[in-house]
Amino acid sequence: MSEIHGWMTSAAGAPLKLTTLDAGPLAADDVEVAVTYCGVCHSDLSMVRNEWHNARYPLLPGHEVIGTVSALGANAKGLRIGQAVGIGWTAESCMHCQRCLSGNQVLCDQAVPTIVGHHGGFADKVRAHWAWTIPLPEGIDQASAGPLLCGGMTVFKPLLEYRVLPTARVGVVGIGGLGHLAVKFAAAWGCEVTAFTSNPGKVDEAWGFGAHHVVASGDAKALHAVAGSLDLLIVTVNAAMDWNALLQTLDKRGRMHVVGVVPEPIPVPAFALIGGQRDVSGSPTGSPVDLAQMLAFAARHDVRPQVEHFPMAEVNAALAHLQAGKARYRIVLDA
Amino acid sequence: MSEIHGWMTSAAGAPLKLTTLDAGPLAADDVEVAVTYCGVCHSDLSMVRNEWHNARYPLLPGHEVIGTVSALGANAKGLRIGQAVGIGWTAESCMHCQRCLSGNQVLCDQAVPTIVGHHGGFADKVRAHWAWTIPLPEGIDQASAGPLLCGGMTVFKPLLEYRVLPTARVGVVGIGGLGHLAVKFAAAWGCEVTAFTSNPGKVDEAWGFGAHHVVASGDAKALHAVAGSLDLLIVTVNAAMDWNALLQTLDKRGRMHVVGVVPEPIPVPAFALIGGQRDVSGSPTGSPVDLAQMLAFAARHDVRPQVEHFPMAEVNAALAHLQAGKARYRIVLDA
Repeated sequence: MSEIHGWMTSAAGAPLKLTTLDAGPLAADDVEVAVTYCGVCHSDLSMVRNEWHNARYPLLPGHEVIGTVSALGANAKGLRIGQAVGIGWTAESCMHCQRCLSGNQVLCDQAVPTIVGHHGGFADKVRAHWAWTIPLPEGIDQASAGPLLCGGMTVFKPLLEYRVLPTARVGVVGIGGLGHLAVKFAAAWGCEVTAFTSNPGKVDEAWGFGAHHVVASGDAKALHAVAGSLDLLIVTVNAAMDWNALLQTLDKRGRMHVVGVVPEPIPVPAFALIGGQRDVSGSPTGSPVDLAQMLAFAARHDVRPQVEHFPMAEVNAALAHLQAGKARYRIVLDA
Repeated sequence: MSEIHGWMTSAAGAPLKLTTLDAGPLAADDVEVAVTYCGVCHSDLSMVRNEWHNARYPLLPGHEVIGTVSALGANAKGLRIGQAVGIGWTAESCMHCQRCLSGNQVLCDQAVPTIVGHHGGFADKVRAHWAWTIPLPEGIDQASAGPLLCGGMTVFKPLLEYRVLPTARVGVVGIGGLGHLAVKFAAAWGCEVTAFTSNPGKVDEAWGFGAHHVVASGDAKALHAVAGSLDLLIVTVNAAMDWNALLQTLDKRGRMHVVGVVPEPIPVPAFALIGGQRDVSGSPTGSPVDLAQMLAFAARHDVRPQVEHFPMAEVNAALAHLQAGKARYRIVLDA
């Protein structure tokens, strides 16, 4: 039971190799999950390439896990062997700090990401704390659900956190792995959705995801034409943008919410905040209850990531496909 | 009744001169107020000097008015002759747009500031829409209350808007006209208050205003020592700061709220927003109900601006005193 076979890399940018490792005894609060699918998130690629300078090697990526419970630690609560579950960005948190005790486990300073100093889901088995092992709701499509656990949660969080109403006008900047899920979720949430993309080839697909309007994000005139029209703008890109033009798409009291790891500081004019009583904010993924609510909503509204499947043995090809910007829109590895 | 005597200037930076003007008939929705006191706000100075490039001349400044109702327009509601009232930054709004109808009158696109294209309160009389003529609560100290109408409202707004709890840890950056009121209000609100000032001469006064901690805002080590300790940071300065160090004073889920008109865009790192689930926001002053609630709270908790009095005839000396950075902490002109 302690043997795990996973796709690991020993240095930044090196290819992943199938490796057998001894995971040791299962911790009392942990659950072992037999992996059936694992999504490939852009942050897996960033970690493999050590773009954020926090990777630890050897590295076993994968944090959008779908699987079944194969073993339960002595103190694991609320799960049973064979149960279908998901694991996302976070594998454990301390469960006793004020953030954990207040339901904000995702903000725990001791939280362990599934792929940082922990073995991830590009493997036959993966482990996580029982609270971070999320039961899948009835009726969810397991073959496509993996990307919900990180990408989906990331864009769903602002809808939950800010108690967005279905009367809201929601914009989504960047129609990629995160953005296409943001459009689908916001549409299912009942909002009026505007997709912003710089890629003309994605316009028709954005309509298909449920967007009511599609705007060319690189076209200053097009941005100006929708000035003042949005209550919430979810920014999923990780590149510099015409920030002032994007801020101006917000109505007064509007919020620009950043989930893409934009490399340079975002210049925010005080007048745009003050005069319009606006917000600029960001968030990581979500806490266990957020994850459960997101999955239940996705199942009930049949919100599915649009995925391409690769056999897990072709994980290196999958990462190359993602790095080339060719993923439409999210990749799932089949175990 | 249509004659008003006010201190006006005809060009940017020129001294104010006592001028008699014909205000014409009182509009049906307007109220005329006999001025007893008028605060001098830094924005009066900015308008006199046309620093924001939106001044209109001749300009009659003054928008922290305390007075008594001297005449009522035919449709004026809820006020009576002789009633003690206050008027702040806004003199009228359309009252029929969605913002006005939803109680966000301060964000009305047609709102008329008291000193932009409208005659302000450095005068014997001033006019405003009845909804923007705010009855003073019993027990408020009228001689010092003027600065509450703009400066006080500006810093009180985030406490109201974000439903801040008395359990919150609130920081105030800049202990001046706005900041000293922010400290007083946050302390009266029941919060734990940290004052940030670059002026050692203001430290003792900050304690006196109710701060529980005082931090040297120009000292990187001192800022670092309070990293992660605040839920809300109200920035009242209008100068460039070490923004990243200020953002790092916020706990996770913390908010930096900007009310000072900082000239350059504020650089906000995406990681600071995302990892800490933080907000950066801003707001102007407040709507009529905000103003009434602020005044009632100030009266009940005896929150008084610390003021220096000048006779209104010495308005030019008062403006010079303010411009020299000598105001401690707010100036009131006595009519």
